[in-house]
Amino acid sequence: MSGHEYERLPDPGPGLRLHLNENTAGCSERVLAAMRAVSRLDAAFYPDYARLHRAVAGYYGVDADAVLVTNGLDEGIHAASFAWLQCSDAGAAREAVIVEPAFDMYAACADAAGGRIVQVMPRAEFEFPTEETLAAITPATRLVFLTHPNNPTGRPVPLEALDAIAGRLPGEALVFVDEAYADFARGTFLGELARWPNLLVGRTFAKAHGLAAVRAGAVIGAPGTIARLRRVVPPYSVNVFAMAGMLAAIDDREYLDWYRAQVEASRQAVYAACRRLGVHCWPSEANFVLMRLGDRSRDVVAGMARRGVFVRDRSREPGCAGCVRLSAGVVAHTAKALAALEEALCDVR
Amino acid sequence: MSGHEYERLPDPGPGLRLHLNENTAGCSERVLAAMRAVSRLDAAFYPDYARLHRAVAGYYGVDADAVLVTNGLDEGIHAASFAWLQCSDAGAAREAVIVEPAFDMYAACADAAGGRIVQVMPRAEFEFPTEETLAAITPATRLVFLTHPNNPTGRPVPLEALDAIAGRLPGEALVFVDEAYADFARGTFLGELARWPNLLVGRTFAKAHGLAAVRAGAVIGAPGTIARLRRVVPPYSVNVFAMAGMLAAIDDREYLDWYRAQVEASRQAVYAACRRLGVHCWPSEANFVLMRLGDRSRDVVAGMARRGVFVRDRSREPGCAGCVRLSAGVVAHTAKALAALEEALCDVR
Repeated sequence: MSGHEYERLPDPGPGLRLHLNENTAGCSERVLAAMRAVSRLDAAFYPDYARLHRAVAGYYGVDADAVLVTNGLDEGIHAASFAWLQCSDAGAAREAVIVEPAFDMYAACADAAGGRIVQVMPRAEFEFPTEETLAAITPATRLVFLTHPNNPTGRPVPLEALDAIAGRLPGEALVFVDEAYADFARGTFLGELARWPNLLVGRTFAKAHGLAAVRAGAVIGAPGTIARLRRVVPPYSVNVFAMAGMLAAIDDREYLDWYRAQVEASRQAVYAACRRLGVHCWPSEANFVLMRLGDRSRDVVAGMARRGVFVRDRSREPGCAGCVRLSAGVVAHTAKALAALEEALCDVR
Repeated sequence: MSGHEYERLPDPGPGLRLHLNENTAGCSERVLAAMRAVSRLDAAFYPDYARLHRAVAGYYGVDADAVLVTNGLDEGIHAASFAWLQCSDAGAAREAVIVEPAFDMYAACADAAGGRIVQVMPRAEFEFPTEETLAAITPATRLVFLTHPNNPTGRPVPLEALDAIAGRLPGEALVFVDEAYADFARGTFLGELARWPNLLVGRTFAKAHGLAAVRAGAVIGAPGTIARLRRVVPPYSVNVFAMAGMLAAIDDREYLDWYRAQVEASRQAVYAACRRLGVHCWPSEANFVLMRLGDRSRDVVAGMARRGVFVRDRSREPGCAGCVRLSAGVVAHTAKALAALEEALCDVR
């Protein structure tokens, strides 16, 4: 095990948390009510997931044997890494291709599972590096990690890129598309599962549904893939509150629509502010926007924190030097963040 | 991956659940109140575990770097298996010694991690098989799974056995003592951690604290062991309700004492009934009692189920032919179960 370890940020203290792309309105009232209806006995008895699996499968438009509900999407990433990257008895190397910039869990899990990590570096303006990814695929490739839309850039993965990658993979390999933010995107790859049995899509209720702390995720793929993942996931990994929360969230379409509309309005507000302030940013399909502040990034992040608004300097990510990521969810919070951004920029001028 | 898979039982329907050693009184009122105090925002923000780790460490009487809170004890078993049994680059076999009868998660995880499973079979009356376990240890041993007290027998692991095993292990190996039921036992091995840096103790709030569905466990060991486990556990695997529930449970000593006293009284009631009915059973240090019904086991389990009481036929476990396990927690539930047992025994006479 080398230096690939997941970075868990320290609690920044009181303030507006726009550094982890959480839903700063929280989960919906109906979801909270469903979770508060969990009884003393519900807490004490091992849960039965049959109804949950049916509901989640219905929500994503697939059969129940095509979905595994997980303890957050993290567990899906973790399970796929261990199931696909563990070395064989022959000790042959197994490779994970990670298209950067990428969630650091991919490398941490791939590394912990004993896989060799092959990074694909981003292009200048984050245009998807299809050719570079294809060139990184070898007979030893077992997993390719894509993020749609990407975090931290917010850029989508083009369908042609997925098709080219899935078509190039060796027989045993999987392409894992992390769709943590797909609720805010124009498209999802769930519809491609029928065409690509080597595709595994990861989803979560953490972001759009505001359930990050409840741990509610799912992976969706071919039944054979799901069966293999089931064997490396503990049988009761999903807690009863996540179960109650997911079932209620699936039924609370109104809240999801409300938050999505807030995100869309927030993104437009960020774009407008960036234009006005002369800051470069990328059009996003997620609930955040990445902007390039160059040398000022560190001071601006600190200046915003002093004003009670936490955003995240992503300078250390490949291709992201001088870039800051701002969660763009609730409109009122975005307005406060943009005011803080403007003041912090003035400070460093 | 061979046939080692965890058996998740189907929901038996309405009735008295005495088949999974759950706390049939549920979690405490105070714990439920703490979990219901989780807010919409608490649900949406990634949790900070600093306070939880301090509290759990204090509860078990160790330093904070000696404990990792996990998504149920299952996650601790899973993480230890993957961290210690994964094959090296050289492809050398790694062995897990499982002292039977044992929780089927050990074999499922060891197998999924690519380890070779070495079973130690039980002696006739479940006296701990120290010599057989020592004989099973080889230079390839990486993990030894012990259960204290054992499930399903309820028998303790003697301290001399632990000392002999921990002293015999090769340098890299761990002895994992699953103490899921130690809250009901006369002793714990937590006090031996200072003497044995190769000891890892697993605990849970699932049983005594009635939090099985909330997923609240912990592993306690040497700081180096814990650091290695942290690398194979996703960073936010413990949900916010588990955090709230554990903190409240640690403070609710009264409830724990009440349930423990119920368990003690229930065990005595089971022993008395078995004496009266001429059924052999083993003195238990857990919240269940194993009894030998021989050929009648299947029919008695079915007869009790017809009377609305679910118990578990453990006949397929090594050394447990004809044995039935009855959870012995809440006294009123035990009384109902014993009445059903007597009637079911009459049916098959």
